[in-house]
Amino acid sequence: MTIYLIGIDGGGTSCRAAVAGPDGRILARAQSGPANILSDPDTALESIADATRAAFNAEGIDARCIGSARAVLGVAGNNVGDAVRHVKNRLPFPEADIESDGLIALQGALGNDDGAVAILGTGTIYISRQRNTVTYIGGWGFTIGDLGSGARIGHALLQETLLAHDGIHAISGVSGSVLAEFKNDPRNIVEFARQAKPGDFGRYAPRVFEHAKQGDAVAARLLKEAAVSVDEVLDRLVARGTQKICLLGGLGPLYPSWIAARHQNLLATPVGDALTGAVALAVSRFRHLKAIV
Amino acid sequence: MTIYLIGIDGGGTSCRAAVAGPDGRILARAQSGPANILSDPDTALESIADATRAAFNAEGIDARCIGSARAVLGVAGNNVGDAVRHVKNRLPFPEADIESDGLIALQGALGNDDGAVAILGTGTIYISRQRNTVTYIGGWGFTIGDLGSGARIGHALLQETLLAHDGIHAISGVSGSVLAEFKNDPRNIVEFARQAKPGDFGRYAPRVFEHAKQGDAVAARLLKEAAVSVDEVLDRLVARGTQKICLLGGLGPLYPSWIAARHQNLLATPVGDALTGAVALAVSRFRHLKAIV
Repeated sequence: MTIYLIGIDGGGTSCRAAVAGPDGRILARAQSGPANILSDPDTALESIADATRAAFNAEGIDARCIGSARAVLGVAGNNVGDAVRHVKNRLPFPEADIESDGLIALQGALGNDDGAVAILGTGTIYISRQRNTVTYIGGWGFTIGDLGSGARIGHALLQETLLAHDGIHAISGVSGSVLAEFKNDPRNIVEFARQAKPGDFGRYAPRVFEHAKQGDAVAARLLKEAAVSVDEVLDRLVARGTQKICLLGGLGPLYPSWIAARHQNLLATPVGDALTGAVALAVSRFRHLKAIV
Repeated sequence: MTIYLIGIDGGGTSCRAAVAGPDGRILARAQSGPANILSDPDTALESIADATRAAFNAEGIDARCIGSARAVLGVAGNNVGDAVRHVKNRLPFPEADIESDGLIALQGALGNDDGAVAILGTGTIYISRQRNTVTYIGGWGFTIGDLGSGARIGHALLQETLLAHDGIHAISGVSGSVLAEFKNDPRNIVEFARQAKPGDFGRYAPRVFEHAKQGDAVAARLLKEAAVSVDEVLDRLVARGTQKICLLGGLGPLYPSWIAARHQNLLATPVGDALTGAVALAVSRFRHLKAIV
């Protein structure tokens, strides 16, 4: 029986699966529901099985082959032992590795090259690989980390808007737009911020990039400050030997022009996405099994 | 019957009262329990009555005189109509004004002079008075305001400590002390920060001032950043005509050397405390009553 190789990219809103033959070529992809192994492991297990079955069906592969397939899963929370054990013991595959969502993103972006990825989304985390040693930097979350992230940029915009309202900083298009949105009442902004989760702040980040592009001085200042914090981490990566960096996440495509000149020549276009990375890891780890069976 | 004039300084941890004779001279002071009119108005009412009775007792004044006394109370939350109405209708005084804790602090610090106070504690708020017009700036709270406050300085120190742990910034005495306190495990810092209230962050602020004084470069950088945000508000106050500023609050005595040179000649020593200010306001507002009775 053919041993198929599965890649899974499990996220809080959806789970993506791809199935490859023993030669590593991707045959089909499919998607299912949420797969957060920390907050809801049983739903995650269902979503993982659903996405895998759908990928097999799409290619017309006998679903019984799932029982001999090998998989690599990339998920958030892969460092939480209990959650990983719970999920790993209940997967439909005889053998599987559960890795971080960052690692499969790195594999997808860099292929087998050494280098690093900066995942710049609602939060930020940096992952580098050199001669098979993988190092994580950051990823501490919004409260006292994630500098340069969408959540921090959005937070900075709301703070800036209060300063503009109080006449401490000059108002500009971007802070004026927030003030208008909150009916020119700073108490509405404060109340929103007190309830806001990182994602709520993060939704303001694209607006800062848009206004900065149009020449808004306040937006440009906020992005320069954010970019400094990203550049500081890139400096650290470079000092450790990184020579190639892919900017990923929702802000990945928006950030390059704000990154310092000294890092421009390091920036590389990702060769594939996280799902491709999960499949590639599954292929490299489990391909030898075809000889055994 | 003598109409005594009462000043009340009501705070979340204690309530202070002072009683003055019709000539405005303070006869006695006393203290009681918490007086937060927002979170616990009934306890606040008890504390206000307790502190007033204790002040009368201390001077041997007949407690029945409370029923003809006039008072000015300075409290947090004086702009919340419902809370003020609830408390005002139940005070033991036939007439009283409920003002902000900031206003009595301003009156205490400046006497009858025009000028401003910067209240630099766990939070920050700025209050200026010019020809009887009182203006408030800031005071929006920790989440997206209170720049330069103890809470923001402490928050910055914890964030800095994570950056030092990750090798992104150089470690120094002050960040090293935090890292050691959290057993060199950044997850402990992140967990603390996720649960921390502004006061919990604020408790780290004096440490930053101490290390900066001893020449710690990281502590000095954090304070320079904090002081820039204070100086920006002082610029605004100066632009509006303020010529005299008192720095109050727990950080008030620590901040002067960090304030920009352009503001040094504006800084003034407070002439009295908030309780003195409350009494002074009571005297100026209700002293005329002695003629009526």
